Amino acid sequence: MAIQDSEALITSEDPLHPANLIPELCRGFYHLGWVTGTGGGISIREGDKVYIAPSGVQKERIHPTHMFVLPYPQPSPHTDRTFLRRPSLNLKESACTPLFWNAFELRDAGSCIHTHSQNAVMATLLWQEKEFRISHQEMIKGVRVGGTGRALSFLDTLVVPIIENTPDEEDLKESMHEAMVKYPDAAGVLVRRHGIYVWGTDWEKAKAQTECLDYLFEIGVKMKLAGLPTILESYP
Amino acid sequence: MAIQDSEALITSEDPLHPANLIPELCRGFYHLGWVTGTGGGISIREGDKVYIAPSGVQKERIHPTHMFVLPYPQPSPHTDRTFLRRPSLNLKESACTPLFWNAFELRDAGSCIHTHSQNAVMATLLWQEKEFRISHQEMIKGVRVGGTGRALSFLDTLVVPIIENTPDEEDLKESMHEAMVKYPDAAGVLVRRHGIYVWGTDWEKAKAQTECLDYLFEIGVKMKLAGLPTILESYP
Amino acid sequence: MAIQDSEALITSEDPLHPANLIPELCRGFYHLGWVTGTGGGISIREGDKVYIAPSGVQKERIHPTHMFVLPYPQPSPHTDRTFLRRPSLNLKESACTPLFWNAFELRDAGSCIHTHSQNAVMATLLWQEKEFRISHQEMIKGVRVGGTGRALSFLDTLVVPIIENTPDEEDLKESMHEAMVKYPDAAGVLVRRHGIYVWGTDWEKAKAQTECLDYLFEIGVKMKLAGLPTILESYP
Amino acid sequence: MAIQDSEALITSEDPLHPANLIPELCRGFYHLGWVTGTGGGISIREGDKVYIAPSGVQKERIHPTHMFVLPYPQPSPHTDRTFLRRPSLNLKESACTPLFWNAFELRDAGSCIHTHSQNAVMATLLWQEKEFRISHQEMIKGVRVGGTGRALSFLDTLVVPIIENTPDEEDLKESMHEAMVKYPDAAGVLVRRHGIYVWGTDWEKAKAQTECLDYLFEIGVKMKLAGLPTILESYP
Repeated sequence: MAIQDSEALITSEDPLHPANLIPELCRGFYHLGWVTGTGGGISIREGDKVYIAPSGVQKERIHPTHMFVLPYPQPSPHTDRTFLRRPSLNLKESACTPLFWNAFELRDAGSCIHTHSQNAVMATLLWQEKEFRISHQEMIKGVRVGGTGRALSFLDTLVVPIIENTPDEEDLKESMHEAMVKYPDAAGVLVRRHGIYVWGTDWEKAKAQTECLDYLFEIGVKMKLAGLPTILESYP
Repeated sequence: MAIQDSEALITSEDPLHPANLIPELCRGFYHLGWVTGTGGGISIREGDKVYIAPSGVQKERIHPTHMFVLPYPQPSPHTDRTFLRRPSLNLKESACTPLFWNAFELRDAGSCIHTHSQNAVMATLLWQEKEFRISHQEMIKGVRVGGTGRALSFLDTLVVPIIENTPDEEDLKESMHEAMVKYPDAAGVLVRRHGIYVWGTDWEKAKAQTECLDYLFEIGVKMKLAGLPTILESYP
Repeated sequence: MAIQDSEALITSEDPLHPANLIPELCRGFYHLGWVTGTGGGISIREGDKVYIAPSGVQKERIHPTHMFVLPYPQPSPHTDRTFLRRPSLNLKESACTPLFWNAFELRDAGSCIHTHSQNAVMATLLWQEKEFRISHQEMIKGVRVGGTGRALSFLDTLVVPIIENTPDEEDLKESMHEAMVKYPDAAGVLVRRHGIYVWGTDWEKAKAQTECLDYLFEIGVKMKLAGLPTILESYP
Repeated sequence: MAIQDSEALITSEDPLHPANLIPELCRGFYHLGWVTGTGGGISIREGDKVYIAPSGVQKERIHPTHMFVLPYPQPSPHTDRTFLRRPSLNLKESACTPLFWNAFELRDAGSCIHTHSQNAVMATLLWQEKEFRISHQEMIKGVRVGGTGRALSFLDTLVVPIIENTPDEEDLKESMHEAMVKYPDAAGVLVRRHGIYVWGTDWEKAKAQTECLDYLFEIGVKMKLAGLPTILESYP
């Protein structure tokens, strides 16, 4: 692909074009404390193209020209990663890429968000088992079955699997995959002492669900610290 | 009503026109953590028209063209809901509409705000009875009797009824109505594990009271967790 | 004074003119949680003129045209309050005016800030005596003796008197006056269950001191709740 | 150096020029609560020039014309400080200058950040020994050995030395120097009851590391208060 064509992939006056939207959304996530210290980010898949911000950059200062664009699906799962566009600057591909791919392949997601939110991390510390569970919260209704299905009901118990962190982010791919297979209804996967991956059919739904889950982790942590039960047998 | 007329309802250069104001206020509420994950919102009634944002959209990204406009009062309470304008996009009417109507009908309110603020939800968890109560806080003076009457005094005890949440938001209409009849002096109704509805004679007073109540829930929760009494028999 | 002259008092292209600065500063204070629900505010005195925002308005939405301008000193302390300018809208004079006057008269302050910060209120709840005290914090160095004198040292103990709240804000004038006479070194006066008044020789120093004091209340509250002593006998 | 040349040092249309960048970064730090009350700041070294904001000014309102520019290295370590440019306003040199110099001289840093973040201060209060330590947190990977070396691994324990505060900031120079020599792997030095100094090879890396460290102090404090161990012997 010629350089000119490659630049066309990230050049648009539409503020909702992924190359423009990802920088804007990342600025918002920074101010929520989700992607400070260069961590975290968002990927957007539109048809056969995936847009991903680079690794190790300040997420509140990304420009459209920093964007990586990848073909979806990849030509072969067994070769090196293929790109439609790499930024001309000396920028590194996001280590989250294989994890975003889990969401695209297993859930047909259109977007996947990764945060280092302290609410998520505190939830993984206070729920020492392999699941975060909370019931009877209105915000549960903002989460969808499997991330892309019907909305949960107020009467459903929200369950988010927790996988153990690994020194290399790429190495989470397999355990995240396993958790997604074992928990087909979960809208995200928590990574202990690290953060969370959340997906949706498009960026709006992925973002809304990330906000709902983060809210539920935050209030769950507050409840647990206040000695309140986070699961009710019956209500009211 | 012709389409052209319908667009006139939400087209204005006045930043205080409800169609412009609701998006701006919702952006502010988003940054306060009141309407994340698409939850919550604000309705404004000006004379015989009510403006409401759609359900299930990112509240910090609403445009005037997303707005629903309804006649007030409705032509008949027993027929399907009537609209002066529906957005052309595939947007859903807010499930809060019947609850906003409670505020318009029972209190002659000009605006009603619904938040999912964690301060409100934590208050409903720590006050397990049917009322939130706090006394001797300056911010009580920012709340009005019944939401639309005279301002409370520093010596008044603030009481906000708490109703139980239901799976469908519309089903809260009756219990909210009952609580408003039983507590004619209350400026809002808390919904357990969900949030709050607050109203006022206009959007400015509704917003100011929502801020005061949210402040009082927040400090009440802090006091209770610190082991401080939230009601004083006498002062100083 | 003719209306035209009166408008000149609040019309300036200089962003640092009090009529422009007060709205800007109040927006900032709103986002710090100091003046939500219309409470709190800032007054600026330049020579023989005092600029004050109105009572009961949303502090993040003030316009220069909302401003009250008063002569300093007042022609007579025993007559009704005299104004150089009143806004043409139906706006009420701030109930804080007599308290701001304490700072101008007793400390020759050029600015006085009033906040409802929860850090200040929590400090008055956890320090049940008549003083907030903290020692050995770097931020103490940002506070000045009496609010307008030399900066405190890291080795000085910060003392802020606490007065009891009254139903009418004006009625705090006398007890605030007494506290300022009794504590000539204090840079502010806390009002129990209400907030704080802080002053300085100009708006920059008043604002910086309000930030330092608010920081010290916040960390003092955190320390007390964590069981840490807030006063050290010796250090290190 | 002629006045004209001196102004050229701080005049640029490039938003990444240190004279433009420092004001922008300080505004961001203010909103993170790192530099309120005029405290804290950032220095940037580009080749043989160091840019530093003045002492005692509101860090969210700095202008490029306020900037001090110093030659690096200084002509003689034993004479008074030499400047390439001093602001024409009556502004004081930052008391942090000798401490920033530690980072330039001992670590060849390109930028050094000083914050009064309450997370850092609370960490120094809850870790009463001479070190803050935390292990098994993803955000550790955002910190570099010695601040300018390779990135830490998830399996590394983060150690930040804590020095005792002194009445005069300049007097910290020696103990910070000692701590940096004793802890060659540390990316920053905590100052008890005061804040932190963090450095990096350039402003981007210094800022990212400050964010990572601040995150780790914040979550470390939360964990300690929740009774969770902040160091694990083994994982998972």
